[in-house]
Amino acid sequence: MDLRVEKWPIPEPKDGEVQVSIHSTGICGSDLTLYSKGFIGDFVVRQPMILGHESSGIVSKLGKGVTNLKVGDRVALEPGIPCRRCEFCKIGKYNLCTDMVFFSAPPHHGTLTQFTTLPSDFCFKLPDHVSMEEGALLEPLSVAVYACTRAGVTIGKRVLVAGAGPIGLLAMMSAKAYGASEVVITDISQSRLDFAKKMGADHILLVDTKDVREMAGRVKDSLGGRMPEITIECSGAESAMQMAIYATKSGGVVALVGLGAPDATLPIVDAACREVDIRAVFRYCNSYPSALELLSTGRVNVKPLITDRFSIEQTLEAYDAAMGRSGIKVMINCTRQ
Amino acid sequence: MDLRVEKWPIPEPKDGEVQVSIHSTGICGSDLTLYSKGFIGDFVVRQPMILGHESSGIVSKLGKGVTNLKVGDRVALEPGIPCRRCEFCKIGKYNLCTDMVFFSAPPHHGTLTQFTTLPSDFCFKLPDHVSMEEGALLEPLSVAVYACTRAGVTIGKRVLVAGAGPIGLLAMMSAKAYGASEVVITDISQSRLDFAKKMGADHILLVDTKDVREMAGRVKDSLGGRMPEITIECSGAESAMQMAIYATKSGGVVALVGLGAPDATLPIVDAACREVDIRAVFRYCNSYPSALELLSTGRVNVKPLITDRFSIEQTLEAYDAAMGRSGIKVMINCTRQ
Amino acid sequence: MDLRVEKWPIPEPKDGEVQVSIHSTGICGSDLTLYSKGFIGDFVVRQPMILGHESSGIVSKLGKGVTNLKVGDRVALEPGIPCRRCEFCKIGKYNLCTDMVFFSAPPHHGTLTQFTTLPSDFCFKLPDHVSMEEGALLEPLSVAVYACTRAGVTIGKRVLVAGAGPIGLLAMMSAKAYGASEVVITDISQSRLDFAKKMGADHILLVDTKDVREMAGRVKDSLGGRMPEITIECSGAESAMQMAIYATKSGGVVALVGLGAPDATLPIVDAACREVDIRAVFRYCNSYPSALELLSTGRVNVKPLITDRFSIEQTLEAYDAAMGRSGIKVMINCTRQ
Amino acid sequence: MDLRVEKWPIPEPKDGEVQVSIHSTGICGSDLTLYSKGFIGDFVVRQPMILGHESSGIVSKLGKGVTNLKVGDRVALEPGIPCRRCEFCKIGKYNLCTDMVFFSAPPHHGTLTQFTTLPSDFCFKLPDHVSMEEGALLEPLSVAVYACTRAGVTIGKRVLVAGAGPIGLLAMMSAKAYGASEVVITDISQSRLDFAKKMGADHILLVDTKDVREMAGRVKDSLGGRMPEITIECSGAESAMQMAIYATKSGGVVALVGLGAPDATLPIVDAACREVDIRAVFRYCNSYPSALELLSTGRVNVKPLITDRFSIEQTLEAYDAAMGRSGIKVMINCTRQ
Repeated sequence: MDLRVEKWPIPEPKDGEVQVSIHSTGICGSDLTLYSKGFIGDFVVRQPMILGHESSGIVSKLGKGVTNLKVGDRVALEPGIPCRRCEFCKIGKYNLCTDMVFFSAPPHHGTLTQFTTLPSDFCFKLPDHVSMEEGALLEPLSVAVYACTRAGVTIGKRVLVAGAGPIGLLAMMSAKAYGASEVVITDISQSRLDFAKKMGADHILLVDTKDVREMAGRVKDSLGGRMPEITIECSGAESAMQMAIYATKSGGVVALVGLGAPDATLPIVDAACREVDIRAVFRYCNSYPSALELLSTGRVNVKPLITDRFSIEQTLEAYDAAMGRSGIKVMINCTRQ
Repeated sequence: MDLRVEKWPIPEPKDGEVQVSIHSTGICGSDLTLYSKGFIGDFVVRQPMILGHESSGIVSKLGKGVTNLKVGDRVALEPGIPCRRCEFCKIGKYNLCTDMVFFSAPPHHGTLTQFTTLPSDFCFKLPDHVSMEEGALLEPLSVAVYACTRAGVTIGKRVLVAGAGPIGLLAMMSAKAYGASEVVITDISQSRLDFAKKMGADHILLVDTKDVREMAGRVKDSLGGRMPEITIECSGAESAMQMAIYATKSGGVVALVGLGAPDATLPIVDAACREVDIRAVFRYCNSYPSALELLSTGRVNVKPLITDRFSIEQTLEAYDAAMGRSGIKVMINCTRQ
Repeated sequence: MDLRVEKWPIPEPKDGEVQVSIHSTGICGSDLTLYSKGFIGDFVVRQPMILGHESSGIVSKLGKGVTNLKVGDRVALEPGIPCRRCEFCKIGKYNLCTDMVFFSAPPHHGTLTQFTTLPSDFCFKLPDHVSMEEGALLEPLSVAVYACTRAGVTIGKRVLVAGAGPIGLLAMMSAKAYGASEVVITDISQSRLDFAKKMGADHILLVDTKDVREMAGRVKDSLGGRMPEITIECSGAESAMQMAIYATKSGGVVALVGLGAPDATLPIVDAACREVDIRAVFRYCNSYPSALELLSTGRVNVKPLITDRFSIEQTLEAYDAAMGRSGIKVMINCTRQ
Repeated sequence: MDLRVEKWPIPEPKDGEVQVSIHSTGICGSDLTLYSKGFIGDFVVRQPMILGHESSGIVSKLGKGVTNLKVGDRVALEPGIPCRRCEFCKIGKYNLCTDMVFFSAPPHHGTLTQFTTLPSDFCFKLPDHVSMEEGALLEPLSVAVYACTRAGVTIGKRVLVAGAGPIGLLAMMSAKAYGASEVVITDISQSRLDFAKKMGADHILLVDTKDVREMAGRVKDSLGGRMPEITIECSGAESAMQMAIYATKSGGVVALVGLGAPDATLPIVDAACREVDIRAVFRYCNSYPSALELLSTGRVNVKPLITDRFSIEQTLEAYDAAMGRSGIKVMINCTRQ
């Protein structure tokens, strides 16, 4: 696809909305997929659109009726605005809303821009000691937080995280913060695992075999002979899902975060006979407040994840860097400099 | 395998146990698998054993310390005795106990016999108006009840049951009793479906295509354009599991009851993006009391499911009849006649 | 207070709203409190207002963007419109929204009128076989449904309902529909109890003593020596709350629906040592769909509860009748006749 | 009561039991009540008995069939042995077992002795780096852990703990470990509060008024204008329970841990209208593993709570010291020295 830095009109906030002057926008794997393929899942780019949805900024204008924020507030942006009226919205599962307007999911524009507008209740005010870049990372952190809550991570649980990319790393750190006794993380890249170790993983395991039962056994060994009650699958790889089921303790949970090929062959009788539940995780809902607590109380430190920084004018270079995947998270500064 | 009617010593009840004079024992699909193949899953027949685990009887002797029952009580038998000491037993998930002694799971003898012994708390006293045959059917009914509770069936839910064998039929009837607004049931046999309709299914759907999305669409159509929130998969067929995921509403649950081939290829991204959870159901735990309520209050009528009756001396004929699968449930009368 | 039949302007639907021509409006106890005292709890009548919030009607005009309804649709009205933006709304507990606009809670007008407007997603389309009067009763039925779900009524539970007024009766009927094995209901009025018996209560108990432990014992006796796992307290009387705690089985739940004096002296150590939870129930949320299922599937028949009928011109007589409390539910026909 | 150091026979382990040579036994408030009053609740001392139930020790002999422990293992003792057969035991709520044998609850002997016996699955092996004294404190820590899990403490919750005695302190520390953003603790003693602050309380509040609404307001103020979602009431004082209800956020939970007078007058309409649940906490169940995780991972440091140490020969002095309540926790070394 063709990626350009262009001038667009500055949007005005409607009733209940605010206009935000974007400060920082991270690049997500889904942005890269849209950039490289022109679609992701059922979302297809059919007309010029702005990418990006991991953003923070400063409130620059208030729409009518906004009372929870004021101009100048530093905020993180939750980038999916649900309809608020369907049954999913009403029961508190707004991530399943079929009328969701999600920034950078075609045909909706994203936030890799200087100004955007959104309902004021989808802005989360940042404490002074939380940086704008950290605010932008609330988005992927919310995915990790939601996965931990869906999977039931708490004190006394052992957790396996499959995949040490940005989401896997955040899931590992979140699992620790949610009380996990020990977290073991797996990946096919030793350098990613080494980074995970630095970020707090109790155990790292290189996936160097196709024998998923063997890998499951190593997971158990790494935890001193105890199987993890919870696995958070962040790789999207079929083999990782298979390992996840074999590795998880009876009565436990495999949370599916990573998305890969549409179909996967799974050892379903093993899951059934040991009551290993397979629990789906789609984005997040009501997770920003908890994610922000993790940051503001210092329980999770996301700063080391930002390995590359660019200005908005350097967006093409930023995307090239992100495509190379040598670093962890690429952050773009959207302010006029 | 070689199936014989033999004389065995009458077992004596230990402390806390009762001796039960068995009245009725149903034939379960797992009995047939053991009979025909000599193993089921990891359970292998290595020495002569007694089959059967769907039983009711009359208390014939009390072990020391038994106070909840008296000789002459009519009881249903819960056929799996857990260790009571492991972490699974202590948290109330005793069906996951790895030291479970389950009747007729090799090497443990079953209850297709005239006398057995078991702890008194695994005997459930039958009200006078509940027959011995109904008592024997508490076992498969408990599977259905447990599936309904694990899946969360309650008022306002629409339910798809895949498979119209004995468990599927009981799941359909239980789902209605648990409050389901409508239950649609699928099978590859029209005669089974016709029977399901008589037993209370709101809608029946013949599986006459390999297009699982097409079948999922018909499920939705049968419910007036609404997808079922819950699917109870009782067939063990891969195609049924696939249909189950496609057919289930976002945020819903597929409960896996039927067991087939060890692996299944599943549309896992569809499940993940719509948060359709795959929940495993292994036997049951703490389900006999509720199953008995269903029977004793008349919310579920299992009597029509018994299509064939034999005496214990006719056991070989009974198994042949069951292998033919022309009826639904074969019941063996174990009393001396 | 002064109650009058007056002419008011017909309201116009805003975007996303519909205008409803009200057909039936029931009189609720809170309407009577407002009428007789001029306030209820913190809600004080300070200017002329329209009472009523148990209503059904016919869609008479569509606001912009409404697609789920059409003019002529017969609907029940959920009378509390939350802000949709606060944390309570977002997590699906919109009944706790502090910006709730609840019809007939001062200063908001009610629905004892010929026309009202409300967001289209708070209108529930009635099947043809559900009458307008039944539709109006969805409101109190939703209270009962919400209480049953909060309390966890399901197959195998025994339930005590304290108080046999409209809400108590609906709670009893709902508890049966949700699967309760047996429901015992208490009241200080034998005639109410007799009516409850007709409506399906398994056991009725006249409260003719101030000895709450004695009453708790009778509850247990009525259930054949078994204590109810769940008590739904609908009277608001302190003595009933005390009995509720004593009567409820260890590990059970007392759901508080009835509101009386601000403070109550409770046997809190008994509750604590037996882990009897006291669970608060405020109105309802996401309960209309399930309540409508109860009506449309015939699991609950509310028709016999309507004991008095008046036209809107006879509103003063209707209120006088309701104040007399000789009947159960007074229904006002709001159509022009 | 008369408290003596006496010689008793050394008990022998039965099948499945171990004999433990007790190392450390802490003094609990209930021990003091038994000592000073001769009863606690319905438990009355009718014959000479051994006090104490907060203990650790070394396995000194194995009963038949014990495989999970060996002689010499350092263990903490869970002091309540349930029947394992009743419905409460089977559903995993064994703390409600009515046949519970709880050490030091009359007529059962306690563990302030040199040897005791108990089932091996109620012994929890201590890692080398966890001391015997810490092991003894697993008992009160399990109360705190169970309260946190019953109350739902997790990331993002604000917590009020009422009462800064040993249980309150442990609840405060556990709440932090379970992820609470901030914990505010109240007491009538400034010195206890000062100690709580040292142990990690975010905010301390002296209760110097009888105006419980005023205190509730101060709790909110201390949290920057946010009400706590969860209150753990550890004082047993009626006024604290009242404050707890007023202070807790709508939709929140008050967990009752402290036991005082049998009855308490509570602002029940405030609780009901804001859906503040009152959740009872009786001892604990399945909490030792998590409590041990808190200790072994260093998430909670209980050592500073031990303010007084005595030998078993000095038991009378130890009890006198504990009665004075100048320290926090009195620990008795039961080894022969």
